[in-house]
Amino acid sequence: MRCAKVRDSAVVVETVERPTPSTGQVLVRCRACGICGSDLHLLDHREDDARVFERLGIEVADPRADLVLGHEFVAEVLEYGPNTLETVAVGSRVCSVPFLLDGATPRAIGATPGIYGGFAEHFLLDSSNLLAVPDGMPDEAAALVEPFAVAVHAVNMAQVSADDAALVVGCGPIGIAIISVLRQRGLTVVVASDLLESRQQLARGFGATEVHDARTGTVLPAAAHEHSAPVVFDCTGATGMIGRIMSEAPRLARIVCVGISSRDEPVNPLIGVVKELSLRFALYYTPDEFAESLRLLSNNEVTWQGLVTSTITLEDLPETFERMRAPSDATPLTPGKIVVSFPGGAS
Amino acid sequence: MRCAKVRDSAVVVETVERPTPSTGQVLVRCRACGICGSDLHLLDHREDDARVFERLGIEVADPRADLVLGHEFVAEVLEYGPNTLETVAVGSRVCSVPFLLDGATPRAIGATPGIYGGFAEHFLLDSSNLLAVPDGMPDEAAALVEPFAVAVHAVNMAQVSADDAALVVGCGPIGIAIISVLRQRGLTVVVASDLLESRQQLARGFGATEVHDARTGTVLPAAAHEHSAPVVFDCTGATGMIGRIMSEAPRLARIVCVGISSRDEPVNPLIGVVKELSLRFALYYTPDEFAESLRLLSNNEVTWQGLVTSTITLEDLPETFERMRAPSDATPLTPGKIVVSFPGGAS
Repeated sequence: MRCAKVRDSAVVVETVERPTPSTGQVLVRCRACGICGSDLHLLDHREDDARVFERLGIEVADPRADLVLGHEFVAEVLEYGPNTLETVAVGSRVCSVPFLLDGATPRAIGATPGIYGGFAEHFLLDSSNLLAVPDGMPDEAAALVEPFAVAVHAVNMAQVSADDAALVVGCGPIGIAIISVLRQRGLTVVVASDLLESRQQLARGFGATEVHDARTGTVLPAAAHEHSAPVVFDCTGATGMIGRIMSEAPRLARIVCVGISSRDEPVNPLIGVVKELSLRFALYYTPDEFAESLRLLSNNEVTWQGLVTSTITLEDLPETFERMRAPSDATPLTPGKIVVSFPGGAS
Repeated sequence: MRCAKVRDSAVVVETVERPTPSTGQVLVRCRACGICGSDLHLLDHREDDARVFERLGIEVADPRADLVLGHEFVAEVLEYGPNTLETVAVGSRVCSVPFLLDGATPRAIGATPGIYGGFAEHFLLDSSNLLAVPDGMPDEAAALVEPFAVAVHAVNMAQVSADDAALVVGCGPIGIAIISVLRQRGLTVVVASDLLESRQQLARGFGATEVHDARTGTVLPAAAHEHSAPVVFDCTGATGMIGRIMSEAPRLARIVCVGISSRDEPVNPLIGVVKELSLRFALYYTPDEFAESLRLLSNNEVTWQGLVTSTITLEDLPETFERMRAPSDATPLTPGKIVVSFPGGAS
């Protein structure tokens, strides 16, 4: 089978042996898999991350080992391992939380050396994690279950209610998914902020009630201060953004950090105290939140149409990653999500 | 009357004119007033604070203007202003939230140039803020109403329940008051951490169920990781402590920052994300929390006896502040609270 590997901070496509499912596992064939901001982060920052994990006393795999990325997948069941409960019929389409549960701690699919992710034609899932994708749900929507689960989790962490005002900083795919979920939860004030005109437009299309052009020099609009105790989502992953948001946020703002940055950055405690701010760092989602995301998307209860703005093949991945690596202030390849589609898996 | 003023980063005691209450105000005579860590902060960091407020676009008074500190007071009602509702009888003892409410925004008593605080023999309060101190409640306890209100607020912000584990980093008076309130709320795991043997002992006396010696090199004991989603109170006010606590804290910890530091300090977002930490910055208290503190102390529902470990006179203040200014790793003057007692106001 073909797969795309991170090797020496580049991506190469190679032919490798298809993995064999052991007990409890299932071999699947990838139909579509989205590129996540965290894939780009892993491409360049595995050694930085390893240094942070070392500070925490957490053992991690060799950050220079080959790695097959991809955790936003929809796949087709090919073959169960021996003595394995066949939770979904062979040939059916499935989603899954990207974890293998054998062993002492869950291992992340698409982020652990030696475990293939969705940028391989075939990979392994845990049979107990499989969720059947309903008939009629496009592959494109099913590939968005994972990022929308991140959005559901971030919104839940913020303990948002319908009469809250929300500010979403950074309108990449995660910011857009959060806007979509906030609208589904009934919020009537959802302010989006981005540097790019194309992403501002995307945010409008997904229900942002106001759009702020961050090229004006502030990440939040001045009118943010009219809202009491708003929730602010940092979906930029940009180093230094937490401090900027703290400086600009209104009193009592709850700031939810959804992006990933492994570099130390400055915050000012006095600013936190004077405004009584809170910061919450969000990671993944619960299995229930993942299932909720699948339900929301398959029932079209959240807007998702138009979020995938580019579809490529596995062979395009090396060049695509190279082009996505451009400096963060450069115009991105495409405003929305890029999905790798596999032959036979077109939506 | 005599009062102690901060002038050019020193404290001087001078004779000044007694203030006159206007409508809505009441002139009081101070009986006792505690020294707070924030008083020490204001002694040295008003210009730093002013630079932070400038970043926030908040106008502040000249940071070099004379300032009469003191906001942890118990006082006696002397004279109401004209046409003022006499909420408490003249001659009675009172506590009050340290704010004057005339004008557009509340002005902090003991932290605003031109408004005398409790390190003056006489000062002004807002008559609508007065709370009568019950007969039989010692002045020493009444002077602790303000710091215990800070503790009640911090505990409320953490949304603590009786089956939570709590870790209190820094056992100065605020840390001790938090330990006391946590025990009153029924927590059975309250771990205290400090560098100093004398403060560790104080923490034990106030109900800490375990004491960690921070001279071992970690601010939290290794056993902290046995507790799921504990609440951690940073009561040190030490620059860099937020990052240290984030590095050492168990997964899902809620970190409440109670100290004040106006210098930028580094945090690592990846550490926050990996452990799904939250940070909450606490400021003051609500009037209800202040009243709750008075009730808890006057009914002896919280342990407070033994927290005041030094009583001085107003004339002692300049030298006391000089000695308190020693580097943070030096042995403090006294492990607990220092209270300035005024003639006729002995407990």
